[in-house]
Amino acid sequence: MEKLMARISREGDIHSGGVLKVDSFINHQIDPALMYDCAAELLDRFKDRNFNKILTIESSGIVPAVLAGYIAGLPVVFAKKTKPISMGKAYSTTIHSFTRDNDYEVMISEEFLTADDRVLFIDDFLAYGNAALGMIDICRQAGASIEGMGFLIEKKFQNGRYAIGKSDASVKVESLAIIESHLGF
Amino acid sequence: MEKLMARISREGDIHSGGVLKVDSFINHQIDPALMYDCAAELLDRFKDRNFNKILTIESSGIVPAVLAGYIAGLPVVFAKKTKPISMGKAYSTTIHSFTRDNDYEVMISEEFLTADDRVLFIDDFLAYGNAALGMIDICRQAGASIEGMGFLIEKKFQNGRYAIGKSDASVKVESLAIIESHLGF
Repeated sequence: MEKLMARISREGDIHSGGVLKVDSFINHQIDPALMYDCAAELLDRFKDRNFNKILTIESSGIVPAVLAGYIAGLPVVFAKKTKPISMGKAYSTTIHSFTRDNDYEVMISEEFLTADDRVLFIDDFLAYGNAALGMIDICRQAGASIEGMGFLIEKKFQNGRYAIGKSDASVKVESLAIIESHLGF
Repeated sequence: MEKLMARISREGDIHSGGVLKVDSFINHQIDPALMYDCAAELLDRFKDRNFNKILTIESSGIVPAVLAGYIAGLPVVFAKKTKPISMGKAYSTTIHSFTRDNDYEVMISEEFLTADDRVLFIDDFLAYGNAALGMIDICRQAGASIEGMGFLIEKKFQNGRYAIGKSDASVKVESLAIIESHLGF
């Protein structure tokens, strides 16, 4: 997607460890108009799929996921990193973050993900694919099917697409901007 | 706001300690169409104010803030609870959560909040007002002015509006649904 790629070229910064900083329009300051266009483009790429719910993980994934949910008229569920005191039974999984070099747990209440759900997962980044694998695990626990996984930015050199394919070869993966190497596009 | 009040009556649950659970449409599962209407209504209530940026705190505040930013054509900045490794100098403050009975730090990069900014703060809940007071503190550090603070739900019995007024009497506060007591509306 031309518009997103151009913005990354102009404002993105590659830091050590392959961290791409896009804090001025995605991860800290948000450009809602650009995010809306990204959400619409992701939906367009999955228009051949039949999904009834959009899934994401807090926090940055919430932005494109909610805008996609608004455009498509679908509910959005975001996996939570801390268990609210009022949460009942939940599916959970552990995700390893290479960026922070730590493990964190995410959970989705059993109320909001069931075997009737056909999910489109949307997130800001596809890096090593660990967050995506965690969501595949949670969907398996719930018996929900994953119709697709859409990302704003894919860091191709971290091979997340390969990791998703190994876990579930049937999942369609789309990314709006693909970064080929540590050095940039 | 009738539509939001009706939804809270139907699906909201009051738990011990005055915690209002609205997980089915705001805090875990999101109804994007309802959130869009809430964002539009908040903007309408502040149409007499001149702001150039919308501020919120991750995670649940992001939803109404981004939709408001989309409608108004303004950038959104969300205060972060963890410092990304790529973040430079930042304003930070400590917020006490009565719900979780702990303190947490939030921060905003100096890049994205300056003395030129006139801020509309948007969040999901106004309870004791601690998150709002934290944002007033951060805006003071940056020299930014606060044009208003808008909330989806105000738990009036926790007196957050009074706490905001004591800290900065000039801040206009609006809430779309006001819960009068521990027992409900």
